Amino acid sequence: MVRIDPAFDGASEPLASLPLCEVRLQNDARFPWLILIPCIDGLVEIEDLGQGDRVRLLDEAVLSGRAVRAIGEALGRPVEKLNIGQLGNLTRQLHVHVVGRRADDPCWPGPVWGQGAPAGYEINDLAVARAAALGVLRL
Amino acid sequence: MVRIDPAFDGASEPLASLPLCEVRLQNDARFPWLILIPCIDGLVEIEDLGQGDRVRLLDEAVLSGRAVRAIGEALGRPVEKLNIGQLGNLTRQLHVHVVGRRADDPCWPGPVWGQGAPAGYEINDLAVARAAALGVLRL
Repeated sequence: MVRIDPAFDGASEPLASLPLCEVRLQNDARFPWLILIPCIDGLVEIEDLGQGDRVRLLDEAVLSGRAVRAIGEALGRPVEKLNIGQLGNLTRQLHVHVVGRRADDPCWPGPVWGQGAPAGYEINDLAVARAAALGVLRL
Repeated sequence: MVRIDPAFDGASEPLASLPLCEVRLQNDARFPWLILIPCIDGLVEIEDLGQGDRVRLLDEAVLSGRAVRAIGEALGRPVEKLNIGQLGNLTRQLHVHVVGRRADDPCWPGPVWGQGAPAGYEINDLAVARAAALGVLRL
């Protein structure tokens, strides 16, 4: 089991394990937002992954995009555009963000990272979001 | 030849052609910054690419990361972290940003997209940046 940087704990919660990555749900009801963390210690950049794992990472990012769309649908706010980002300026452990965007979201058309304050999920919405994402990720 | 959205023209300039992507140099001396545009018409999301082309895109993004590092070295500002982003909220044609970051850059640790005003390159620096990037991309 790879060590997950504790910085992820406050902002996101565990959702699913895929062949390469742990998938976490960002605790921010403003956007359907998943984070993928490859389960290999010591990675910082995409270039640190071998080519097979790079392919796996991108496949899992595409699958997570479908899960993000499913969250948006389930909460009555269908996703209009996916944003994928690998930054890691603050938390170095390699991770990829997959975020569903809409023209009426609070950061549109700018990026979401570091913008504004996260909005916690209502407990019901959180259950709906988790179930919708898992319906895709567990296929 | 794929049609490149005219929105790219003002902010970046053509640099190189890779097997899948046109590579452009962002006209912003604040960061070494390349943009990859897959040469297939009608793409918006990564999921629109077939799996072979997804692998090519990621390989070319990793190569572009090396080119971004080479620009930073050549201009005396070595890159400390790569940021890779696929947003497309404003310009829908599928494109991937590869940006070199430093803790002393004007947007650190936030994202670069839509932040502050681009700084034009000095003409000499532009030539140095282009040569450094091409030294990697043409290997």
